[in-house]
This record gives sequence, structure tokens and C-alpha cells, in this order.
Amino acid sequence: MCQLLGMNCNVPTDIIFSFSKFVPRGGLTDHHKDGWGIAFFDGPCARHFVDQRPAIDSPLAELVQRWPIKSTNVIAHIRKATQGEVALENCHPFTRELWGRYWVFAHNGNLKDFHPVLDGSFHPVGTTDSERAFCYLLQEMRREFGPEAPSSSDLTWFLQHHCHELAQYGTFNMLFSDGKAMYVHCSTDLHYIVRQPRFAHATLHDDELDVAFTTPVGPQDKVAIIATAPLTSDEIWCQMPPGQFMVFVDGVSSVAPCPRAGLERLAVMQ
Amino acid sequence: MCQLLGMNCNVPTDIIFSFSKFVPRGGLTDHHKDGWGIAFFDGPCARHFVDQRPAIDSPLAELVQRWPIKSTNVIAHIRKATQGEVALENCHPFTRELWGRYWVFAHNGNLKDFHPVLDGSFHPVGTTDSERAFCYLLQEMRREFGPEAPSSSDLTWFLQHHCHELAQYGTFNMLFSDGKAMYVHCSTDLHYIVRQPRFAHATLHDDELDVAFTTPVGPQDKVAIIATAPLTSDEIWCQMPPGQFMVFVDGVSSVAPCPRAGLERLAVMQ
Repeated sequence: MCQLLGMNCNVPTDIIFSFSKFVPRGGLTDHHKDGWGIAFFDGPCARHFVDQRPAIDSPLAELVQRWPIKSTNVIAHIRKATQGEVALENCHPFTRELWGRYWVFAHNGNLKDFHPVLDGSFHPVGTTDSERAFCYLLQEMRREFGPEAPSSSDLTWFLQHHCHELAQYGTFNMLFSDGKAMYVHCSTDLHYIVRQPRFAHATLHDDELDVAFTTPVGPQDKVAIIATAPLTSDEIWCQMPPGQFMVFVDGVSSVAPCPRAGLERLAVMQ
Repeated sequence: MCQLLGMNCNVPTDIIFSFSKFVPRGGLTDHHKDGWGIAFFDGPCARHFVDQRPAIDSPLAELVQRWPIKSTNVIAHIRKATQGEVALENCHPFTRELWGRYWVFAHNGNLKDFHPVLDGSFHPVGTTDSERAFCYLLQEMRREFGPEAPSSSDLTWFLQHHCHELAQYGTFNMLFSDGKAMYVHCSTDLHYIVRQPRFAHATLHDDELDVAFTTPVGPQDKVAIIATAPLTSDEIWCQMPPGQFMVFVDGVSSVAPCPRAGLERLAVMQ
């Protein structure tokens, strides 16, 4: 299964990915050798890096490992192909422009027999169910709201409705952002945590991907991390229940927050 | 003035950019410190790298210098801002999806009072006249040809017409590609050359940008290079006259070729 990783925060923060352990190692890392990608928002634009090779063979991955790009919204993905061949155009995250902003999308799961009617306004370049879902969402957003971007609350409810619709076709764990908010839908496997105090390092639970976070410096800094599996073994992550839809803005979840996360994390830190 | 560089060839070829001399040096390099970018087509998709910093400060530029990415269509740009602030969203080349392929565009020049009516199907993210022109071209292409891509010849004549229209607003030197063909319009400054025999190295005429080409290995290999100013001092480049529109496919110009180029180059090589 693919791996999703998202970050939403109130001050630009860097994530440095170390892909040195991304070499196929036993059965675990073999599952994620079909490409990878990451997008860092910078205002309405995004730095977008994708490569169809395993991260261990990717010069781009080596760069991302060295370059502390600061951003308030980041979406990353490592791919195990289900639909669509191993090719650059099938690597997540996908990007498109709508309403004068870039939108970034990554998906974990498999939508069976999902072939929506697309009017050509957003046409898939690759052959994945994921890019079809992305194009469908953007098409319906424009169809519903017209040439001007809606309010955040209107968009939230609209996306929540359509994510539930898409989840009828199969597993639909999703990260979706316009650089202002991070929209998240859980179908089977997503966890999150909001970090506020100082922190230094986290290790992906399955030992494939190391993530080093710059220590927040201000007492008001908030960094939300959303991942397929918990990244760290020394913190309590909140597991999203199937069907849950959340929105993160400035490191704070604004829809259906998990009440357990803060308390359990505080308990661990004492 | 900005610098354009394009490559179109019949076999995937690499271009390695050395930006080590991109530091502002005298009056020349001062003019190109407002960002840079490059796009390498890979099938219908493109690896797209942009940075608002001078190349000398850009880790991405350092990567492009080291990583021999092979492609049959490449568009690069170094920016001297005329319209639009120094920002990621204002860096060329720009990209959008249309008809299930990515399109890449870079512009040298300045379009004055160019504010076309845009219907929102392609909305500028930044504030440059260049991105407005790109969005306008794509909008008109979709409006003219509908949801299916036209033939190459129909698109050629359509683009030629609209490039002449855009050039009425000011200087419009342009590179435009969908990964299959390279469309080129010259308003003031563009040169090209088609290389067939073995070659090894070329140096940008103004000593800002070094370009190293992998030596073609097959006798049928053809590599067309299009640049604002001739890249090399040991070859004869063909200067495009104002108003000329060309299309390069598989390293061969298919519209209005310059008859002088081949003969003069052969003369130099003897």
C-alpha cells in the first residue's frame, strides 16, 4: 500500500526526508518502489517534485533530503502501483491550477470501476484511478462554484460530500491542499498529531522513511502531521476513523477533531 | 532581457546546465537574477523545476547541473523581471495540462497593456504578462478545437496566427511545447541550429550559462537548439527574423527553415 504524508502549520516549517533507508529491505520496502513525490506550497504556487524511480535511486530525493524547504503545507507520497504503470505521469502528488491557485492531491487506496464523465476541463495525463479522482473533484468544484473560489466552509462541506461519494468505489485515503488548508479524508488508514512544544525528530514506523522536523521556535507554533502510519514511537497519534473528513488550517483541525490526541500526547510528555 | 533556451531532438538527449557563473558579474549577470526554471518532457508529462532565486543560490540549479536528464523536448529560462515581482509563481517556464498532456511555455519580452478576457479555464497564478499570454493561448486552443487535440498542422497555423496577434502588444519571443513539437516565435532575438554530427560542448555567448551536450551516438541523431543568443562561438547559428514562426519536430524544423544554417555550419567545420 502507498504511504501518505502531509504537513500543515501556522509558520513555514521544513521537513527533510531521508530516503537512505528506502532501498528495498525485506518485504517492507519492496512495496514502495514505484515512484515517489512531494509538493511544497510557496504562496499560491508549489514546488513539485516527482520521480518514477525508487527514492534510493533518485537524485531528486537526495536533493530533498539536503534542502530544508520551508512551507506551511506539504504533501508527500511513496507509491506502490495498483492502477497505472510505473511512469512519471502516474506519480503522486498531482497538481492542477484552479481559481488562480495550484491544488495538490495524493491518494492512498484503490478505486474500482471508477470512470467518471470528465468534460475535459481537467484531463488525466496518466492512467491512475487517483488522477481520475483528482480531475473529477476539480471539475465538480468548478461546476459547483463557477469561476470564483468559494468560502472555505462551503468548500469543506462540498469536498466532504464528494469524498464520501468516492469512497463508495473503494479505499480513498486522501490529502488535498490549495496551500491555505489541508483537506483530509480517511477511508482506512490515516493518523495525525498536532505538535506545539519543541520537537526534534521522528522516524517512520515501518523504518522506510526518516523525517526530521525543524524545532518550532515560537510558543504559538503549531505543526499538524498527517500520515498513513504513525511516524514516531514516542508520541500518541490519533487514528482517524473510517469515513472521517478533516480540515487543517494553521496547524489546527477545524472539522471533527479527535478529542483524544492532545490529552494522550500530554500524558506521554509528562 | 531574459534568456530563452530550448532543445528538440529525435532521441532523448541530456543538457547539463552549469550555473556556476550565474553570480552577478558586472552588468551582464545582474540582469538575470530574478529566478530561473527548466522543464524536461518525459512522455506526456514534464519534470518542472523553478526557483525565484538566482541560480547561483539555488540547490535545484546545482542538482540540474549534476543530473543528466534525457529528454526530447526541453525549455529553460532565466529571468529579468519586467512585469510581476520576484516570486516562485512568476518564474518561467509555466506549465498547464490540456488534452491530457502537459504544455510548457517560456517568454522573453514585454507585452504592454495586454489584459485579455480570460474565462477561468486557465487562470494566471502569478502576475506576469507572460503567464497571461500562456493562459490566453491555451484558452483559445481549447475554444477553437474543443475537447480533442487537433492535428499538428492545424495547431501550427493556429498558433502562428495568435503569436502574430500577441506580438502586436510588444516583444514576444516564445518557446512552447507539448513534448512532441517545439513551437517557436521570434519577435526580436532568437537563434537556432540543428546539430547532426558529433559535438561535445557549447558555451553561452554572454558567459553566463554553460551547456554541455551528450554526444549523439547515432548517425541519424538530430538535436535542434534554440536560444536567445548563440550558445557557441565555433558554430554558425541561424538568426530568426522578426515575425518568424517555426516548429521543430524530431530535431527538424518543419516550417520556414533558414536555408543558410546547414551550409554555413558545414563550411565552418571543414
